[in-house]
Amino acid sequence: MAYLNENFLKLKAGYLFPEIARRVKAFVDQSGGSVDGLIRCGIGDVTEPLPSVVREAMHKAVDEMGKRETFRGYGPEQGYEFLRSAIAEGDYRSRGIQISPDEIFVSDGSKCDTANFLDILGGTNRIAMMDPVYPVYVDTNVMNGNAGDAGVDGRFGNLVYLNCNPENGFCPELPKEKVDVIYLCYPNNPTGTVASRSQLERWVSYARGCGAIILFDAAYAAYVSDSDVPRSIFEIDGARECAVEFQSFSKNGGFTGTRCAFTVVPKSLEFTTRAGERHSVSALWSRRQSTKFNGVSYIIQRAAESLYTTDGRRQVAELIEHYMGNAAILCDGARKAGLTVFGGTNAPYIWVRNPDGISSWTVFDRILHEARVVVTPGVGFGLQGEGYFRISAFNSRANAEEVAERLQRMIW
Amino acid sequence: MAYLNENFLKLKAGYLFPEIARRVKAFVDQSGGSVDGLIRCGIGDVTEPLPSVVREAMHKAVDEMGKRETFRGYGPEQGYEFLRSAIAEGDYRSRGIQISPDEIFVSDGSKCDTANFLDILGGTNRIAMMDPVYPVYVDTNVMNGNAGDAGVDGRFGNLVYLNCNPENGFCPELPKEKVDVIYLCYPNNPTGTVASRSQLERWVSYARGCGAIILFDAAYAAYVSDSDVPRSIFEIDGARECAVEFQSFSKNGGFTGTRCAFTVVPKSLEFTTRAGERHSVSALWSRRQSTKFNGVSYIIQRAAESLYTTDGRRQVAELIEHYMGNAAILCDGARKAGLTVFGGTNAPYIWVRNPDGISSWTVFDRILHEARVVVTPGVGFGLQGEGYFRISAFNSRANAEEVAERLQRMIW
Repeated sequence: MAYLNENFLKLKAGYLFPEIARRVKAFVDQSGGSVDGLIRCGIGDVTEPLPSVVREAMHKAVDEMGKRETFRGYGPEQGYEFLRSAIAEGDYRSRGIQISPDEIFVSDGSKCDTANFLDILGGTNRIAMMDPVYPVYVDTNVMNGNAGDAGVDGRFGNLVYLNCNPENGFCPELPKEKVDVIYLCYPNNPTGTVASRSQLERWVSYARGCGAIILFDAAYAAYVSDSDVPRSIFEIDGARECAVEFQSFSKNGGFTGTRCAFTVVPKSLEFTTRAGERHSVSALWSRRQSTKFNGVSYIIQRAAESLYTTDGRRQVAELIEHYMGNAAILCDGARKAGLTVFGGTNAPYIWVRNPDGISSWTVFDRILHEARVVVTPGVGFGLQGEGYFRISAFNSRANAEEVAERLQRMIW
Repeated sequence: MAYLNENFLKLKAGYLFPEIARRVKAFVDQSGGSVDGLIRCGIGDVTEPLPSVVREAMHKAVDEMGKRETFRGYGPEQGYEFLRSAIAEGDYRSRGIQISPDEIFVSDGSKCDTANFLDILGGTNRIAMMDPVYPVYVDTNVMNGNAGDAGVDGRFGNLVYLNCNPENGFCPELPKEKVDVIYLCYPNNPTGTVASRSQLERWVSYARGCGAIILFDAAYAAYVSDSDVPRSIFEIDGARECAVEFQSFSKNGGFTGTRCAFTVVPKSLEFTTRAGERHSVSALWSRRQSTKFNGVSYIIQRAAESLYTTDGRRQVAELIEHYMGNAAILCDGARKAGLTVFGGTNAPYIWVRNPDGISSWTVFDRILHEARVVVTPGVGFGLQGEGYFRISAFNSRANAEEVAERLQRMIW
């Protein structure tokens, strides 16, 4: 008899985005099958075309695959040297951060990487995560049996939740109990806020003190414009001993449908056995990737490499400028509507406080029906998200302007 | 303290292909840094260029990504409808097999899929696998904690090994003890042999009888030329109730460096809880993929779709014909050298019996040093592989002819 992994049955059935899709569909259906001017600011998916430098690199790589002499079969599971070097130089060394190419592991997505990283972690770790939080961190820990059972409030008994709210600037306090694994995400999804250097220093110091590991999700690093805001955990002294970093080309190069990302695993990082023996995390991750992954398409790796050229950097900067222009318009619109707004200055998400006492889903429904705009209800990201909604800045300029207008026309 | 998954420490350190690479490097080094005419027939990696139909599809898709109206962001994690439909029609329905598009799950590789599938299986299953076998099946079960500890013979205590040898035509007997999960791979890697319809019927009947699941790896299905040899487990009545199938574009379209594959999960397939509650495998797999995977690049999915066009089928047939022409030449050469040969008629691998009493690694070293040819020692695929070596037919015609010659010139 083939038995299933019963941890899957502990997952909450209504995953956020399917529930949003269901409500939007119901609204469309009751409106006779279409809603004029419906604007989607829910899921954080890019909308603008792939940069020309990326398309040129892919055309060239496709042509190479057509000649026997330049054809590429299986590549290294950890990524081609050309891309690992471009990343190490472009994102780290050129900014004074010591990361070498063999500390870069190329993959097809940060979502996969954060999920797959659990493969090399033992089942006895105490795991802490921010709340509100990207739901994938919770769900993948539930699947792996790390989370325990859900309580009536939806929180899982074996996870440690780190509350993020305006009082702590959306950067959590250190946990009161000892934890072994800590998820941090900055610039943050969903709140659009950032962590300061001193806040990250506190976390690195904590992790080093107790031998914990920080899983640092920096998928939105390219959106940081303030020079004193860290774009990488490795800007912090000591992070090489306690952190891995997940980065992605999804939101800078517009690769959500093209698929490429990377994880930085410093060679100095070690995990321990229950008996206290220390092992290289890099060797474990490399073995995991070699065994369970076959590397990213050569064509896509060439595409990612092109983002580090002079033209590539300029074209990425233009994309970021476009989306952050939207963010500014949306922040302004929400403020003029009388709402309290967080984020949106170093990240493409705007985190908006609901008028007092109104729940996330009520506000979601009101904005959908009254403004014909799809946002994301904050509670979908965790208990602490109740009372907020998220607006994504990934859109056309015209749509961002229209959403800003409509928010102001609503009677709040 | 961050603890590691200690199952990783049970993996055998010398993974097959790195050990081959080490020995080849040592030979090259002792030969003064290069070996004239060294030919690699070890790893099963394609050598011929991507078909023109594939390149045209990718060029078109890249251009689409450059226009706002046709740009694609996040796609469905299970694959685009256009590709799922092309697969269901092209590989199944057109051959009289009832598989619907929503039973096809597109991925970036069969290696990943076979490994990831363990995520939805519980830890209490008794798992059976063929010997010799693709090492990834064993290693991923070791990592997941399903395999137990390795004995002195290298076999893991909690796995059930199904011996494959000339006596049973390289299709194993049914296990004497009850098992819950069975890995079968046909056409087989490494032996290059196939299973007959009646052999597969016996396995399907066994699995249905005890509620086991068959994980059927059909990555080499396109190499079957005999009309009475099944290309899919779903040609067998009842398989929809007891099997999933892994297929890949690596070896038919030459996608080893391009990356696309798929898994067929029939909607009728169910797993059970320890308490006997039944759950849809399709729903579990879909949830796993939605949570831990972001789908395959749009560009690559269009590439895979092109293989199902009239031109695509013709170009795939030409590639298969090329590699199987090599296989015939290699089989013939090995036989003329006085060796006993298996496989190589419906699969691109030739499984050769060593002269009596000579070990796999000894023959590997002799062929490397005397013929300057890299093969794969059979023992690398398991205990039952001892006394054999594998020759891959993935090569140029000239290299295949040269290897056939050199094998005959060796003093066996």
